[in-house]
Amino acid sequence: MSSSGSAISPYTSLAISHPAESITHVELNRPEKRNAMNRAFWSEMVDCFNEIAADPDCRVVIISGAGKLFTAGIDLMDMAGDILQPEGDDGARISWNIRKTIVKYQETFSVIEKCPKPVVVAVHGACVGGGVDLITACDIRLCTQDAWFQIKEVDIGLAADVGTLQRLPKVIGSRSLVNELALTARKMFADEAKSSGLVSRVFADKEAMIAGALEMAGEIAGRSPVAVQGTKINLIYSRDHSVAEGLDYMANWNMSMLQTQDVMKSAQASMEKKSPKTIAFSKL
Amino acid sequence: MSSSGSAISPYTSLAISHPAESITHVELNRPEKRNAMNRAFWSEMVDCFNEIAADPDCRVVIISGAGKLFTAGIDLMDMAGDILQPEGDDGARISWNIRKTIVKYQETFSVIEKCPKPVVVAVHGACVGGGVDLITACDIRLCTQDAWFQIKEVDIGLAADVGTLQRLPKVIGSRSLVNELALTARKMFADEAKSSGLVSRVFADKEAMIAGALEMAGEIAGRSPVAVQGTKINLIYSRDHSVAEGLDYMANWNMSMLQTQDVMKSAQASMEKKSPKTIAFSKL
Amino acid sequence: MSSSGSAISPYTSLAISHPAESITHVELNRPEKRNAMNRAFWSEMVDCFNEIAADPDCRVVIISGAGKLFTAGIDLMDMAGDILQPEGDDGARISWNIRKTIVKYQETFSVIEKCPKPVVVAVHGACVGGGVDLITACDIRLCTQDAWFQIKEVDIGLAADVGTLQRLPKVIGSRSLVNELALTARKMFADEAKSSGLVSRVFADKEAMIAGALEMAGEIAGRSPVAVQGTKINLIYSRDHSVAEGLDYMANWNMSMLQTQDVMKSAQASMEKKSPKTIAFSKL
Amino acid sequence: MSSSGSAISPYTSLAISHPAESITHVELNRPEKRNAMNRAFWSEMVDCFNEIAADPDCRVVIISGAGKLFTAGIDLMDMAGDILQPEGDDGARISWNIRKTIVKYQETFSVIEKCPKPVVVAVHGACVGGGVDLITACDIRLCTQDAWFQIKEVDIGLAADVGTLQRLPKVIGSRSLVNELALTARKMFADEAKSSGLVSRVFADKEAMIAGALEMAGEIAGRSPVAVQGTKINLIYSRDHSVAEGLDYMANWNMSMLQTQDVMKSAQASMEKKSPKTIAFSKL
Amino acid sequence: MSSSGSAISPYTSLAISHPAESITHVELNRPEKRNAMNRAFWSEMVDCFNEIAADPDCRVVIISGAGKLFTAGIDLMDMAGDILQPEGDDGARISWNIRKTIVKYQETFSVIEKCPKPVVVAVHGACVGGGVDLITACDIRLCTQDAWFQIKEVDIGLAADVGTLQRLPKVIGSRSLVNELALTARKMFADEAKSSGLVSRVFADKEAMIAGALEMAGEIAGRSPVAVQGTKINLIYSRDHSVAEGLDYMANWNMSMLQTQDVMKSAQASMEKKSPKTIAFSKL
Amino acid sequence: MSSSGSAISPYTSLAISHPAESITHVELNRPEKRNAMNRAFWSEMVDCFNEIAADPDCRVVIISGAGKLFTAGIDLMDMAGDILQPEGDDGARISWNIRKTIVKYQETFSVIEKCPKPVVVAVHGACVGGGVDLITACDIRLCTQDAWFQIKEVDIGLAADVGTLQRLPKVIGSRSLVNELALTARKMFADEAKSSGLVSRVFADKEAMIAGALEMAGEIAGRSPVAVQGTKINLIYSRDHSVAEGLDYMANWNMSMLQTQDVMKSAQASMEKKSPKTIAFSKL
Repeated sequence: MSSSGSAISPYTSLAISHPAESITHVELNRPEKRNAMNRAFWSEMVDCFNEIAADPDCRVVIISGAGKLFTAGIDLMDMAGDILQPEGDDGARISWNIRKTIVKYQETFSVIEKCPKPVVVAVHGACVGGGVDLITACDIRLCTQDAWFQIKEVDIGLAADVGTLQRLPKVIGSRSLVNELALTARKMFADEAKSSGLVSRVFADKEAMIAGALEMAGEIAGRSPVAVQGTKINLIYSRDHSVAEGLDYMANWNMSMLQTQDVMKSAQASMEKKSPKTIAFSKL
Repeated sequence: MSSSGSAISPYTSLAISHPAESITHVELNRPEKRNAMNRAFWSEMVDCFNEIAADPDCRVVIISGAGKLFTAGIDLMDMAGDILQPEGDDGARISWNIRKTIVKYQETFSVIEKCPKPVVVAVHGACVGGGVDLITACDIRLCTQDAWFQIKEVDIGLAADVGTLQRLPKVIGSRSLVNELALTARKMFADEAKSSGLVSRVFADKEAMIAGALEMAGEIAGRSPVAVQGTKINLIYSRDHSVAEGLDYMANWNMSMLQTQDVMKSAQASMEKKSPKTIAFSKL
Repeated sequence: MSSSGSAISPYTSLAISHPAESITHVELNRPEKRNAMNRAFWSEMVDCFNEIAADPDCRVVIISGAGKLFTAGIDLMDMAGDILQPEGDDGARISWNIRKTIVKYQETFSVIEKCPKPVVVAVHGACVGGGVDLITACDIRLCTQDAWFQIKEVDIGLAADVGTLQRLPKVIGSRSLVNELALTARKMFADEAKSSGLVSRVFADKEAMIAGALEMAGEIAGRSPVAVQGTKINLIYSRDHSVAEGLDYMANWNMSMLQTQDVMKSAQASMEKKSPKTIAFSKL
Repeated sequence: MSSSGSAISPYTSLAISHPAESITHVELNRPEKRNAMNRAFWSEMVDCFNEIAADPDCRVVIISGAGKLFTAGIDLMDMAGDILQPEGDDGARISWNIRKTIVKYQETFSVIEKCPKPVVVAVHGACVGGGVDLITACDIRLCTQDAWFQIKEVDIGLAADVGTLQRLPKVIGSRSLVNELALTARKMFADEAKSSGLVSRVFADKEAMIAGALEMAGEIAGRSPVAVQGTKINLIYSRDHSVAEGLDYMANWNMSMLQTQDVMKSAQASMEKKSPKTIAFSKL
Repeated sequence: MSSSGSAISPYTSLAISHPAESITHVELNRPEKRNAMNRAFWSEMVDCFNEIAADPDCRVVIISGAGKLFTAGIDLMDMAGDILQPEGDDGARISWNIRKTIVKYQETFSVIEKCPKPVVVAVHGACVGGGVDLITACDIRLCTQDAWFQIKEVDIGLAADVGTLQRLPKVIGSRSLVNELALTARKMFADEAKSSGLVSRVFADKEAMIAGALEMAGEIAGRSPVAVQGTKINLIYSRDHSVAEGLDYMANWNMSMLQTQDVMKSAQASMEKKSPKTIAFSKL
Repeated sequence: MSSSGSAISPYTSLAISHPAESITHVELNRPEKRNAMNRAFWSEMVDCFNEIAADPDCRVVIISGAGKLFTAGIDLMDMAGDILQPEGDDGARISWNIRKTIVKYQETFSVIEKCPKPVVVAVHGACVGGGVDLITACDIRLCTQDAWFQIKEVDIGLAADVGTLQRLPKVIGSRSLVNELALTARKMFADEAKSSGLVSRVFADKEAMIAGALEMAGEIAGRSPVAVQGTKINLIYSRDHSVAEGLDYMANWNMSMLQTQDVMKSAQASMEKKSPKTIAFSKL
């Protein structure tokens, strides 16, 4: 594998590295705990992506899991207090506190979507519960041949509440499949993940996948950040609006963004049959 | 086949049975008329699903067709009066009455969606016209290898008006295919139904399909009804709202619903490596 | 190939013909320029589709490209002034003018969607940049085995702003694939276009495809125009609204549209086992 | 005056009469209980307005209160069980049952809005709590000089949940006033009700108000029911949609509704300087 | 006064003049016909406002009526064919044609809203039927003491379909009043128009009103067109969207529009205590 | 009076005090600079309201201005850099940075709305520019007889972009007045502010107003915080959604919130004719 570089991370549940120019690699990094999502994770993700969003040296992000699998999902042992023993003097006040907790946890994955830099997620082995919530908030999904996905929440007595039910139906095209997965908690393996469109590529193993993710990230990082980040922002806006609203938003967006030197630089490179990756774009 | 039990039904177009605990089986039951949808059917479905929605002993529903095929669609002979000879003193009053009829018929399938219990539909042989409207309102779609689907309405001079045009594009992922099917009325067979995502599983024959449907229904019925029904309600809400709105709705939903003993019971079973199906959940 | 007939066109970038009754064939017709979209094209499309929308003799439209490929996309040489040298006394006024230009260009493809007659697009060879914007605004997409598709905009430093980012995610079911294509500008070939649902049929070569397109167009043209055009209008409305809103719209639509003789004529033909194509429908 | 005629009512909390042709008068009729809203009331309103909606002899409705005041609001004694002692095995199931109750109560006033016939409400004396929910669902509000209004819910520890918080801000123009009334539960008297736009007319006493309401109802009843009911339906649609959506809905509505003889009859009467009230319109 | 200047108009129903720099005055100009809206009017308004929208020398528009009153509304004699005798082979085709007509007429007033320059309308005497549709599409409403307003449509058997029902409830704050006016067709006089907020100023007579309109138009014309037109565009967007959507739109708008020299020029004038009207702004 | 108590504030532009139990008073506190909004203000408001939102001892907030007037609006001298000299290598990058600044400033007032505790704002003397943005985000508006309001932005060459254009039209009922104020920058005085509904009460002078604000705040603080904060949250939700959506949200909200002891306590106090202010409610 390849995530090299300064690997000194301020986080206990995540490892951050910079395997190539303009690429940030975020690893779920509690392999001895099957990368289960503990208290630290839920807040570190927010800090991590806020930092990435503000970092002009980062143009694209890769997320993957350290060790044998992507993630076993929520760390029930560590989190049980928040979920199973909420505080409050009566039913209303308990509800009020639970709601605050849910909203905070939802933000953990929404930051991925709010970050204007594209996020490629690379899954190997298990991707369970909160893992599915996480990957549906990413932009591009890759997996290995041994990967499997499970919407586990219904098995522990609750409706998934940090993103899967909201995003998965807008991520893949078969509503019957979404419902089946969410209502029965059955596992979905790599082939079905590919044919259903959850992932756009399947790799033989983790090493090949990380190499593929880096190559794809390199393609993205090599293009105009004005173009790339505007594309992400408008794709997400379009998901939640009518086509007419999306076109109006786009026109307002590009009335500014076409005033970039990147267009001229890119158009010239294109005419000279050079790759956009040869161009030095200003930071954004 | 297997739908056993009390088979005494208050309906003339539907047969209701309880093949296993917490499972209700609704059969389109005019096999001699190819399960064509007659006047009785359009109102009995509403009564039937209102009853199911209120029945604490039902946690999941299976719909299938008796006899050689699923349904030939609307029973034109029985329904012609409503559609072809609407009453009214002038064009406006005729329109007013037609609108009331359409709205009433739309409700026949919308009750499936409003019922919080998941509905698995199992299709064999023909599923024509109104049949497609019906199945797109269900949560999970299964079919046999000999099944075929046809949006027939354009062949009789009208745009489908009881759900297909509204729900099918949100059920499968290829808009080009939806448009082709709706504009040409061509048949779609089981393989394309599977690859396009309309159905999530194809079975060799009806017997295998009903067995498969019962097994899947058993998986759903064995899990917390608070979790399962909350999942259905939020999946349907999400379809029609932005991700942000869906997350907000979910937070409000679960601030109550996490206060169930089902979570504790399920979490404990999970830690003890027991299936959730071994748990006795309170009724909902 | 087959587009025969009066081929006298008022357009320089489009060739219009009438290969069969009620069918209009629009060809991108600058084969020597790889059907690149020049200034004339952007305004001629609007005129062309406004005319088609008002023409009672047209019930369905086919779009294809003359020569060796469908289209190379925008004609940068011809268009550079508009895009690269916008006028204006200050940043705000430049933006104001750019916005006007974008809105005008967006309309070039939105007219396809606003035209109530179904539009079948048949792609061979390259479909690049603006070509993808164009085809996502059509109702049914076909291609040849040698076709490929490329969202090129990010390569020239801009986010696609005339429809691809708004329509493509609603046209195919895999969001991961949409994002990958838009962010990396990689080519997608016919097989992936089919499996992802972008096209609903792939043909061996252009001749076979045009024959297939004509046959499909014939199926559509042979059915009630009240039914067909109402179907298109309601499918597009449904895309951008909730199911409940879509059903309400549909009820208002059909309270009028069921008052057509086409229903009686079609129902009678159906009972007599005749094809709807044998019926003489009034013009619409 | 007032409510004359057949006064035999199937309801215990409401008195129904027909003071003039095409006018139905609904009286809150438990004067000895200050017209407090008891269990019977909440379901009788639904039955009553469903009947009115279906009655072709009714073109307009008046609501008023029998006795010394309009209504004291919810009958806490009769309703306490539903609200204060909800059933359920755990917090989630209690919530589930409370939600069903709230949704049922919301329907009690939403039926007024769904009924296509205009509803004029005439308030004298106190209009408290549920009374405000009721009147905000009506189309036209009148009151006497001695009337006062109070959003009482916050005084008994709950946020108003059957309509006031949703409809009042769309009924009057001062948001500061809405918030003040809802957050402090202070009384608002007739003059402020008039200046804020809550009511459109104030009368000296109940007798004058009922006479005024009957005259206004007579004006409405004397006009084309196609025009009047289409106006109500479109005004309510517009409240909840953008202007563009409202215009589109309107166009679809009137493409049918202009095909009424009422237009010709009315236009002719207009040219002959006759009142529309002299015209005999067909029933709707 | 009033409208002076080049008065040569290409229109038969409208008179166009330029009473002061950057101000365009549009007069309804068939005084001998009480400015009734005839066929010419409905299309000339569209041409007129498209021209105004594109005219860099116009920064603000005044609309008023020539002669004794503002407008008597639709010219039934001239328009009767379109409305009373629509063409079509059956009910559906008649509806189809009526819809096209309504949509065309709706555009007549929507152009006022789409024009980015503010429109001040000055009403004297009668403003009936279509006149109310017109003024609700304007930005600022003024009237004389003798003005009166009437939503006349219900008197001729139809629901108002070119804007009043959609815009009036968003223009004034009392829904009870809107409903009363629309359902009874009663006249509203100047005082109630002022107290209800329909107009923001009442003048003694037409002369004073035109002078006041010109003064107000002068205030608007003297300010930065980037600021003024951006204000109108965002006010209209906000009407039809949530606050959060409106803020997002605004941020996208101003990220361009703050890059104008007008801000620096205006800020400097402000610091020097000069009126913005002393500044020479570039054209927009 | 006025703001007494611990007056030690962590802020330089705001003074925080606790004049009575459960009431927090936030004063704009740069009287020597006419409370102009400087850099510190824009971020301190966010910190201040986040703290208030989390403080269980605060149930209601009052905002007022120290010294002779409420606020002169933005402090152009202090802010000029951000607005007039944005950084960036090209037009697109400058726009990107401006957008970030606008979004940050919008948040300064949106925090008031997101805070679930009601906010009463009390205005004396001038309320200019950013001051209007601020007060429209508050829940209840009061003013003195000498107060005046001015939407100043158009005078300095820009469209108001931190809330006025989005919120004011939803705060008062006359759209003509909103447009006039925003397009001409004219002052509005206390009487018109009252009659238009911008403020709900006018007081003789500042002392009387602060006393009135405290009394009103006391009424709010004395009621159930579950009821009060749920009321605010649902009123804001309703503003931005249809009535049907608002009712659904409300039902989900109260299925939890009715499970509070506050209802029982309040109902009992009500039956005993005691004020809710005598009840000891648990903190929220």
